[in-house]
Amino acid sequence: MFREAIARRVEQTGSVLCIGLDSDMTQIPTKHLGSGDPQVTFNKAIIDATKDHAVCYKPNAAFYEARGAAGWDALAETGDYLRSLGIPSIIDAKRGDIGNTARMYAKAFFDEMDFDAVTVNPYMGEDAIAPFRQYEEKGVFVLCYTSNASRVDFQTQLIRTDEGADVPLYEWAARKIVEWDDADNLGAVVGATAPEELGDVRRILGPELPVLCPGVGAQGGDLEATLQQGTATRRGNILVNVSRSVLFASTGRDFAEAARRSAEDLAGRMRAFLGCAMER
Amino acid sequence: MFREAIARRVEQTGSVLCIGLDSDMTQIPTKHLGSGDPQVTFNKAIIDATKDHAVCYKPNAAFYEARGAAGWDALAETGDYLRSLGIPSIIDAKRGDIGNTARMYAKAFFDEMDFDAVTVNPYMGEDAIAPFRQYEEKGVFVLCYTSNASRVDFQTQLIRTDEGADVPLYEWAARKIVEWDDADNLGAVVGATAPEELGDVRRILGPELPVLCPGVGAQGGDLEATLQQGTATRRGNILVNVSRSVLFASTGRDFAEAARRSAEDLAGRMRAFLGCAMER
Repeated sequence: MFREAIARRVEQTGSVLCIGLDSDMTQIPTKHLGSGDPQVTFNKAIIDATKDHAVCYKPNAAFYEARGAAGWDALAETGDYLRSLGIPSIIDAKRGDIGNTARMYAKAFFDEMDFDAVTVNPYMGEDAIAPFRQYEEKGVFVLCYTSNASRVDFQTQLIRTDEGADVPLYEWAARKIVEWDDADNLGAVVGATAPEELGDVRRILGPELPVLCPGVGAQGGDLEATLQQGTATRRGNILVNVSRSVLFASTGRDFAEAARRSAEDLAGRMRAFLGCAMER
Repeated sequence: MFREAIARRVEQTGSVLCIGLDSDMTQIPTKHLGSGDPQVTFNKAIIDATKDHAVCYKPNAAFYEARGAAGWDALAETGDYLRSLGIPSIIDAKRGDIGNTARMYAKAFFDEMDFDAVTVNPYMGEDAIAPFRQYEEKGVFVLCYTSNASRVDFQTQLIRTDEGADVPLYEWAARKIVEWDDADNLGAVVGATAPEELGDVRRILGPELPVLCPGVGAQGGDLEATLQQGTATRRGNILVNVSRSVLFASTGRDFAEAARRSAEDLAGRMRAFLGCAMER
């Protein structure tokens, strides 16, 4: 089960860091990478340098698709490399479509490639989630409250519930995630740029359901507030994703070493927070 | 501009049919396809057989991604073939992500491949749409009211507007599409399985903005009701998508001929409706 795999890695590393492999071809330091596919070589160097401080990695499908078939191969090879190291992988694809199409996306990411978890979009409802959820050993992170500014266009709009209360759409999404979690393998994506709302979502999800929190680093989210509101003291129930500020900490010859220092700093702050919280 | 390209094809064909290339490898009649990549050979045979009756084609990304890099190549080759014939293409990908990621998806579908339009998901708001919209000559169809049963999980939920009215989320989405249409290149996806709601959306969108209506055929949508409610009399403002019932009309040696008959039947009904309506 994905949740247990994550909990084991949290135990091993003392960290809740997920490193987003948004390996933009225009930003990776190609001249310092030697031979082989630059995206694969870059990802392996980043993984090797940071894996003592990261629970898992999250390749972002867009940065591979932008290269066409070569990128698709690089994505698969990155997934295979993580698997060979026993490190969980989340493919950040945010897919969402009707049942027979969603089955094909699930096949792409879970059968053809063998990622351990995926991100999905709930706009089309349970039909769009079910074909992923039926892979019981995999994790499925459903978008709930995202980290970007224009989330307010939809996600903070008030929905009238059956009980006559008005709740923001992201809370409605959190309720749906709980309702849909038959196989104990769903999670929620909640941006680290909104720690208070993360706390609201956590109360709806209960203590076990994992949240994936992007937005620390380049997007400005507060790490400690995110850990506090996400109640990171329960192992395996939160992953804090950082992408650009680790991957591109340096674009020089020392890029991997700089990434390691950035990951180590983040993991150190996580260990300090978690150690403190666990002593209570 | 995409809208004008569609209007020209509607003029040429008298049809508003979009054929969805959901070319499922487990359903295409491989033994009748000869040599070459089966998905590409199948798509070319379908396109050749049906192109007098279709305005455009809509490859569904999932069915290609499920094959990995080979599928990605088949997708690109299908797009190139449509371009060589001067027929507009819509890549049905339903992407939606934060700005820097959405830019990569736009690059994948509009630069690396050269599709004429794309489908996108509005859950993350305008940030997720803007990188596609800035390709002014392309079309961008935003999910509004989809054709699947579980659309009710989100899309029919009531949103409280600033004016104090309660509107279903799909109407809220339609309002956003109008608000976001700075470059006159947005459209809306509205399922043909809900003709009355399509009428409501049309009133919000105004007469020009194109709607892409999946759901006729395997999903049971009513063609004539869709044309009526979508106000198909304005050329270029509606595309009715049919996938499986054309592609897999026969899985025998006569598959292409059967697809042609199916497309011809649909286009004939469209011509009858449009001719009738235009005489008023």
